[in-house]
Amino acid sequence: MDTYHFPTSVEQWDIWELSVPGPETGNPFIEQQIFGEFYGENEHKTVRGFYDGDGVYRLRFMPAFSGTYHFIVRTSFREEICGTFGVTSASGGNHGPVRVSSTWHFAYEDGTSYYCLGTTCYVWELQSYERIQETLKSLKDTCFNKIRFCIFPKHYIFNLVDPPTFPYEGTPMDAQILTEENFHLYSGKSNGSCWDFTRFCCRHFQQVEYAIGELMKLGIEADLILLHPYDRWGFSCMKPEEDDLYFKYAIARFSAFRNVWWSLANEYDFMYHKAESDWERLARIICEEDPYGHLRSIHNGRQFYDYRHPWITHCSIQRQEAVLSAEHTDEWRKMYQKPVVLDEICYEGNLMFGWGNISGRELVRRFWEGFLRGGYPGHGETLLSPDEVLWWSHGGKLKGESWKRFRFLYDIITSVPGRGIAPYDFHWEYTCGTPESEQECKVKSWYLLYFGFKRPAYMDFFFEDNVEFEIHVIDTWNMSIEPAGIGKGNFRVLLPGREYMCIRLMKKKGV
Amino acid sequence: MDTYHFPTSVEQWDIWELSVPGPETGNPFIEQQIFGEFYGENEHKTVRGFYDGDGVYRLRFMPAFSGTYHFIVRTSFREEICGTFGVTSASGGNHGPVRVSSTWHFAYEDGTSYYCLGTTCYVWELQSYERIQETLKSLKDTCFNKIRFCIFPKHYIFNLVDPPTFPYEGTPMDAQILTEENFHLYSGKSNGSCWDFTRFCCRHFQQVEYAIGELMKLGIEADLILLHPYDRWGFSCMKPEEDDLYFKYAIARFSAFRNVWWSLANEYDFMYHKAESDWERLARIICEEDPYGHLRSIHNGRQFYDYRHPWITHCSIQRQEAVLSAEHTDEWRKMYQKPVVLDEICYEGNLMFGWGNISGRELVRRFWEGFLRGGYPGHGETLLSPDEVLWWSHGGKLKGESWKRFRFLYDIITSVPGRGIAPYDFHWEYTCGTPESEQECKVKSWYLLYFGFKRPAYMDFFFEDNVEFEIHVIDTWNMSIEPAGIGKGNFRVLLPGREYMCIRLMKKKGV
Repeated sequence: MDTYHFPTSVEQWDIWELSVPGPETGNPFIEQQIFGEFYGENEHKTVRGFYDGDGVYRLRFMPAFSGTYHFIVRTSFREEICGTFGVTSASGGNHGPVRVSSTWHFAYEDGTSYYCLGTTCYVWELQSYERIQETLKSLKDTCFNKIRFCIFPKHYIFNLVDPPTFPYEGTPMDAQILTEENFHLYSGKSNGSCWDFTRFCCRHFQQVEYAIGELMKLGIEADLILLHPYDRWGFSCMKPEEDDLYFKYAIARFSAFRNVWWSLANEYDFMYHKAESDWERLARIICEEDPYGHLRSIHNGRQFYDYRHPWITHCSIQRQEAVLSAEHTDEWRKMYQKPVVLDEICYEGNLMFGWGNISGRELVRRFWEGFLRGGYPGHGETLLSPDEVLWWSHGGKLKGESWKRFRFLYDIITSVPGRGIAPYDFHWEYTCGTPESEQECKVKSWYLLYFGFKRPAYMDFFFEDNVEFEIHVIDTWNMSIEPAGIGKGNFRVLLPGREYMCIRLMKKKGV
Repeated sequence: MDTYHFPTSVEQWDIWELSVPGPETGNPFIEQQIFGEFYGENEHKTVRGFYDGDGVYRLRFMPAFSGTYHFIVRTSFREEICGTFGVTSASGGNHGPVRVSSTWHFAYEDGTSYYCLGTTCYVWELQSYERIQETLKSLKDTCFNKIRFCIFPKHYIFNLVDPPTFPYEGTPMDAQILTEENFHLYSGKSNGSCWDFTRFCCRHFQQVEYAIGELMKLGIEADLILLHPYDRWGFSCMKPEEDDLYFKYAIARFSAFRNVWWSLANEYDFMYHKAESDWERLARIICEEDPYGHLRSIHNGRQFYDYRHPWITHCSIQRQEAVLSAEHTDEWRKMYQKPVVLDEICYEGNLMFGWGNISGRELVRRFWEGFLRGGYPGHGETLLSPDEVLWWSHGGKLKGESWKRFRFLYDIITSVPGRGIAPYDFHWEYTCGTPESEQECKVKSWYLLYFGFKRPAYMDFFFEDNVEFEIHVIDTWNMSIEPAGIGKGNFRVLLPGREYMCIRLMKKKGV
């Protein structure tokens, strides 16, 4: 009885999946293999499948083109499966995976610009069903289009209870003994946990891919963190061959989701068991195993990884200084010649840690700084609350002030002509963004001049006499855009003398 | 008829002055000389006098000790004058001139600590009598104990009308033609002004010394700016011999005032007619001509002067970056091994210039940053008002929010044991000041931990079990000090989760 299943039609950049029964005995994760070859008019790809427990093997494929595809699936346990399926054109919000575009920016594969505006909820997908639904509902009300989260569970304050599932078969250490005071003593060790690192817990990975799928429906990129140091079970200090097996398994399962990004690690430099050679080996595995070339990066604790490595598609930055963060975007763009994603520039919150206790105002200021300098700042919330549900770790409800200001910002940023913003040296004291595509133009079609915590009551401009602009005064905190007439040649723009103001000039005519 | 005059008794560090008639013909400023020699039990000094117009010559002396002094005055125009006078001990608020103490700090000559908390009013003394009185009244209500101002008039926006007096005999350019738009075209040139740079206008210098004297009565140091680039009359581009004559004259007139500091220039690097050799020559003149060794520095536009030069007693810093200023105090202390006076870290205001448009909150934040890092931040106000009277230039009334918070800060800072504060590396994210004298102590007697715009809701401390502290939670903006009990060993301090908070720990007992 040949009970394999696959769809006969799928949408471009959606997931075509074949499931086939196979052996349950022995260790299917390492003893069995399943591969597929796919032939379309425009592409030919070889793809690894995976064991999903209960005697079921799966193979997933994301076609990049519409038309007819032929496939051959070869396994270690049965005869080949051949077939054909049709791919229809992408529809609705499906624009394909995100790619780097114009050196410092992003676009979906169909050419639509993607302005990355992310948040962080490290283990939102390893919470209760109700909490996960609440998080998805919260995300729907925001304009976040990327979320960073971990595949492995997280051991850290506010997050000391056991997750509903673990990634491996085995027994975790007893979480009962943990307190806010002693938890750090258990970090980065296995503490008597007992796992078989060759047997994945499929329920755990199903939980993760449920989350990825739901995000895909919402048009949100899933920035998957493969490894991280906040661990009490030994997942941060597995052997190289165990890491390799895990990477291959995760890639086989998740890479057909068009919204996946790979983050090799969160705070890689706090994972003291790993050397640079480990990261490079793991990066090579991703490059080899991911048939779709999803975005790849690695996030720092203190020391940046060298983002010049060719396998890194974009920077994934945690700020390194007590005060400055997004202000360095220009330098990082110059240095790395890649998109600068500012994944951690401090979270809106009130923890005792400097990375998690800035105000909403300060975070919104950093967002404007980062965007207008041609980078992509990210959000997080670490506001204490009686239920100890913190967005940064668990998801749930957004409680802060910053996220409410991002739609306004997003609409302004995405209206800038061309693809993306470049920093422009208008004045050393103020931040100015202009269209990336106009770097060679003497006069730009748009200027967004942002004053941050500085609060001029007026600003003088000195252009040629034949240049004319439509002027808007933008209050980035109170979210208002006031027209301020036409400016020609030399002109003065009056401002309210408050903080967080921006002047937008849109060219009407001239040189 | 021998009509010279001098007092027979004077207080220590006050001004003893002899006036004597002499020739009015020719050019007394360069053709005549007057010197005095002073012999006390503990000092012997030679002092230059000066011509004060209308046939009057003056010689001033500031005795540093009590007791009997003998003097001989020699002139180019008459026989010697000898005599004796008594010096009584200093009384009241008279503590003598300010000196450098403990490498990074200051003390008056009598040993009293001096915590520099200055402001800037560039030409307050060249305003109307009423305005000057208003400024003095304003100063009386503050805790400012230093004020920076210029001897020469200032040409800059909000300051385009002619001053009541000029420093030289001659004719200024016509100020009628100046506007806010064209004024910069006239900067740094003489523009047809016509002066005799060998004939000082004594009324002008009398005006300046009236101001110095009034400040002395208020216990405020006069940080005299000898040269500056904001000029339309040619005072910024005089010849070397003209500068030298001016420096000698100013020193002869002003150095007997105990509250004088010498600032060679404001924004020296914007005075394009001068080279480093000029500044070094002028510095040498101050060292040679000032018998009292008043404090000496030079203030930058962008590029710091090299504060390691031995003639420089302290740094006089204008910030060089768009965001950071006082945060660099630690580095500057290390680099220069001198007191770090932060004379310009942006003014509270709303001008279009980044140096003059931060909020009161931000300036107060910079003050706490600067003081707790062991530096001495300075104030200024550039708030637009209908009368165009700006504290930074004219003095008058204080209109801002920052100055009201400085007494509170000052009282806390000056209560720290010993002389001055040193930065302490408590945590890289937060600023911590401890007593300078306790750098070798493992546990300090005081910690002032300041969070600035960060807003933790609690802070954990980890000391040895036998260490006990009295805890206070300080709101630096709302100016409250709340006791928060006793902390022993490891303890947690709760905070309101607002910005601008500080925790003070005062040791009760322990290691």
